Amino acid sequence: MNDVEVEVLAEPELAEPVLVEGLPGVGHVGTLVAEHLIEEGEGELVGRIYSEHLPPQVSVSESGLAELVCVECHHVVLGDRDLLVVTGDQQAASGVGHYRIAEAVLDVATDFGVETVLALGGVPTGELVEDHAVLGAAANESLIETLESSGVEFRENEPEGGIVGISGLLVGLGRRRDLDAACLMGETSGYLVDPKSAQALLAVLQDLLDFEVDLTELEERADEMEEVVERMEEIENQNVPTEDDLRYIG
Amino acid sequence: MNDVEVEVLAEPELAEPVLVEGLPGVGHVGTLVAEHLIEEGEGELVGRIYSEHLPPQVSVSESGLAELVCVECHHVVLGDRDLLVVTGDQQAASGVGHYRIAEAVLDVATDFGVETVLALGGVPTGELVEDHAVLGAAANESLIETLESSGVEFRENEPEGGIVGISGLLVGLGRRRDLDAACLMGETSGYLVDPKSAQALLAVLQDLLDFEVDLTELEERADEMEEVVERMEEIENQNVPTEDDLRYIG
Amino acid sequence: MNDVEVEVLAEPELAEPVLVEGLPGVGHVGTLVAEHLIEEGEGELVGRIYSEHLPPQVSVSESGLAELVCVECHHVVLGDRDLLVVTGDQQAASGVGHYRIAEAVLDVATDFGVETVLALGGVPTGELVEDHAVLGAAANESLIETLESSGVEFRENEPEGGIVGISGLLVGLGRRRDLDAACLMGETSGYLVDPKSAQALLAVLQDLLDFEVDLTELEERADEMEEVVERMEEIENQNVPTEDDLRYIG
Amino acid sequence: MNDVEVEVLAEPELAEPVLVEGLPGVGHVGTLVAEHLIEEGEGELVGRIYSEHLPPQVSVSESGLAELVCVECHHVVLGDRDLLVVTGDQQAASGVGHYRIAEAVLDVATDFGVETVLALGGVPTGELVEDHAVLGAAANESLIETLESSGVEFRENEPEGGIVGISGLLVGLGRRRDLDAACLMGETSGYLVDPKSAQALLAVLQDLLDFEVDLTELEERADEMEEVVERMEEIENQNVPTEDDLRYIG
Repeated sequence: MNDVEVEVLAEPELAEPVLVEGLPGVGHVGTLVAEHLIEEGEGELVGRIYSEHLPPQVSVSESGLAELVCVECHHVVLGDRDLLVVTGDQQAASGVGHYRIAEAVLDVATDFGVETVLALGGVPTGELVEDHAVLGAAANESLIETLESSGVEFRENEPEGGIVGISGLLVGLGRRRDLDAACLMGETSGYLVDPKSAQALLAVLQDLLDFEVDLTELEERADEMEEVVERMEEIENQNVPTEDDLRYIG
Repeated sequence: MNDVEVEVLAEPELAEPVLVEGLPGVGHVGTLVAEHLIEEGEGELVGRIYSEHLPPQVSVSESGLAELVCVECHHVVLGDRDLLVVTGDQQAASGVGHYRIAEAVLDVATDFGVETVLALGGVPTGELVEDHAVLGAAANESLIETLESSGVEFRENEPEGGIVGISGLLVGLGRRRDLDAACLMGETSGYLVDPKSAQALLAVLQDLLDFEVDLTELEERADEMEEVVERMEEIENQNVPTEDDLRYIG
Repeated sequence: MNDVEVEVLAEPELAEPVLVEGLPGVGHVGTLVAEHLIEEGEGELVGRIYSEHLPPQVSVSESGLAELVCVECHHVVLGDRDLLVVTGDQQAASGVGHYRIAEAVLDVATDFGVETVLALGGVPTGELVEDHAVLGAAANESLIETLESSGVEFRENEPEGGIVGISGLLVGLGRRRDLDAACLMGETSGYLVDPKSAQALLAVLQDLLDFEVDLTELEERADEMEEVVERMEEIENQNVPTEDDLRYIG
Repeated sequence: MNDVEVEVLAEPELAEPVLVEGLPGVGHVGTLVAEHLIEEGEGELVGRIYSEHLPPQVSVSESGLAELVCVECHHVVLGDRDLLVVTGDQQAASGVGHYRIAEAVLDVATDFGVETVLALGGVPTGELVEDHAVLGAAANESLIETLESSGVEFRENEPEGGIVGISGLLVGLGRRRDLDAACLMGETSGYLVDPKSAQALLAVLQDLLDFEVDLTELEERADEMEEVVERMEEIENQNVPTEDDLRYIG
């Protein structure tokens, strides 16, 4: 196969579609949002990107089917909005690979008429977060204004060190193609899968793109995560010796 | 030389041949099976794959001959079955290399008329194993059924994290070529070369492909390994100080 | 995009221009000098080099604009001197990448008529430095003489182990193109950003290329760094327990 | 520049030339021999190989000249023997690079009419060696016989794990080109530069290729190394506390 290979599965006509990318990253925030959109919008798989720059790996489904690692594009309709949602189990395995796959994603997007690219991700704060702000970085100033009016924050020198990986490249390479590209990053501790940060990001998307999705499932996952955190704290506390433990030792 | 170079040494006519791959991996399970098939079936070397994606290395034979690292294809006849057995001392040295060599193996296989690909390996359990189950992952559902009827187990979410390396890719890329491709993995501790797991895998292959091979040699190697394990346990026990040691110290 | 892509933004006519490179490295000495030249000389951005061999990353400006990592070329006029100043946030991410980007920089330089290449950097001494000598390595002997007369020192076996990265390659590949190429390296501890070493390097450049720039800003940064160092020493001293601390413990 | 670039500096007519390679490796044994041959035979530089697969680096000469890292080919005449001696400061920086540079060396060799390739190196024993045997691995059996009659030893399963890097590839790829290629490896501790092992290797070469070189310089370097080892042992002994040290402590 070629270096990067695009498999087109369907070619629906889309009206001013918006690309939404959510590949694995900090707190799986981008992935949670992207998968939620596909599920709630009953997305149609329209394309796959295979590449030797992805890890040399197959994933195995619950029934035992082996599938070559790839990046998937789903067409999702929410309200009047056509979305092209990009997800997958893996990012590229090298720097050059990140560039090649980002270019391939933009090529597919361009073929579908995409002019707006939203790359989703998490930004690590290093501590447990109560209020999940959504930070932004964008390819042009008018887009910054639009995003700010939907609740996205633009803070000086954040994220420090820039944005690495496919999300950064979709914006950087998208800008070179004159696309309206932005990266939206939900604040998250960085230690755990974070459905709450994903909810915050979804709230921004709903406002920005004017659609509504049922959040029940994400809320349930958020509750589950909260229980996990509570159980972890309990276990931690149990390891502190109680008076009884001390007696026993003594 | 090119990136990947195939050297064809013989072109026998094969009847519905099955590709069996056993390159080095967990517990050397795949390699043990593949080499056993070649030895018992008095395999004929029909091709070699050289590549700059393999390690930059020669192996040295007992007599002092230096041979460039390569992947070898042997034609093996067992019962009425034509096998194309793929072995070698090394896997590719990079992710891209794994893709390139897997594609080359599939190209050779296709040239010989192969439509079924069985990639062999071990799946680590992290502890010593008594009963060596054989787990599977396959390119399509009818193959899953066939394999199950020969004793292969398909378990939800196993192997966790998918299958990495050439075995995974032969199935993943094989599926894209519409081949009947599967990965068969013998359970093994992951710490030692495991001829017992290889025997379990061979039992599945014999049932599936309807041939029989003498297992004496593998059984002998299994006995040897058992002795090694016993001796290791003895040494470990000897390091626990006995009463006499304590007296001597005191 | 291609492997390496040059974006030309302006094509001024330059008279015997000199290329001055200052990409990130030891003590950020080269970067400090290059950025100072651009600022004081009110440089014009004439070209950008993008490449998949740079890290897969965007930087984010204070206002929230995301910019793909690149190498920038500014045209700077100081006195009667035309300079082509090469800077950027990142060096290449691999050995091959260093070669490709160095070649691209030399291609751009050649297009502008450059025949002299000065690659700037720092050479680590491992201890705090009072007098910042400027060491050199050059593509030919007559250039060595010229540089020596401007205060550059050429010491036997320094820098040990040669010069790695784009600065080394601009000289090595420049020599193969018959350019007058040299590497000028300010001595620096190697632990901190070093504006004093940058000043020493600028003094050499001023003498060599016959121009003058206002050094006020670099001097201010040097003063700031001195304060940082002093504060670090204070903090270190505070961690030594005082008599009071000892009483409290006891 | 291309991936690999050969610069031809002279094209002498050679009679049945033998390629002798000595690039950096274990104990610098190969390098010591190759450089000794060039010096004693007053070798003429006939070609250089530059490559982006070598480290991105220049070396700096004593006078301050910067030279791009490369592999050098010298023509050396010793007795009636034409040698093509391959040396350099660095090996390739990646596995693929090793293949590319080994192929380039063989291309140059073929252009000069080489049919015999001797790759020199050291084989680590892990302890100080008194008698420096020379081990071999060769591309064909008649060459093994010839080498044995010149004192080269062929031992079962040595070197364990095969031969990695350019020396191994020159033999492995040389064999694929039907060249008489062999690797000759002097036993050495593996901890220090080893001129004694180099002498043992030279003795084999003198017998095999029927020439004589003055060994004085290598003997002097061997004496120097012996002094270094003695001094190291003295220092080590000084660190063992003497009776006086103990009194002082007590």
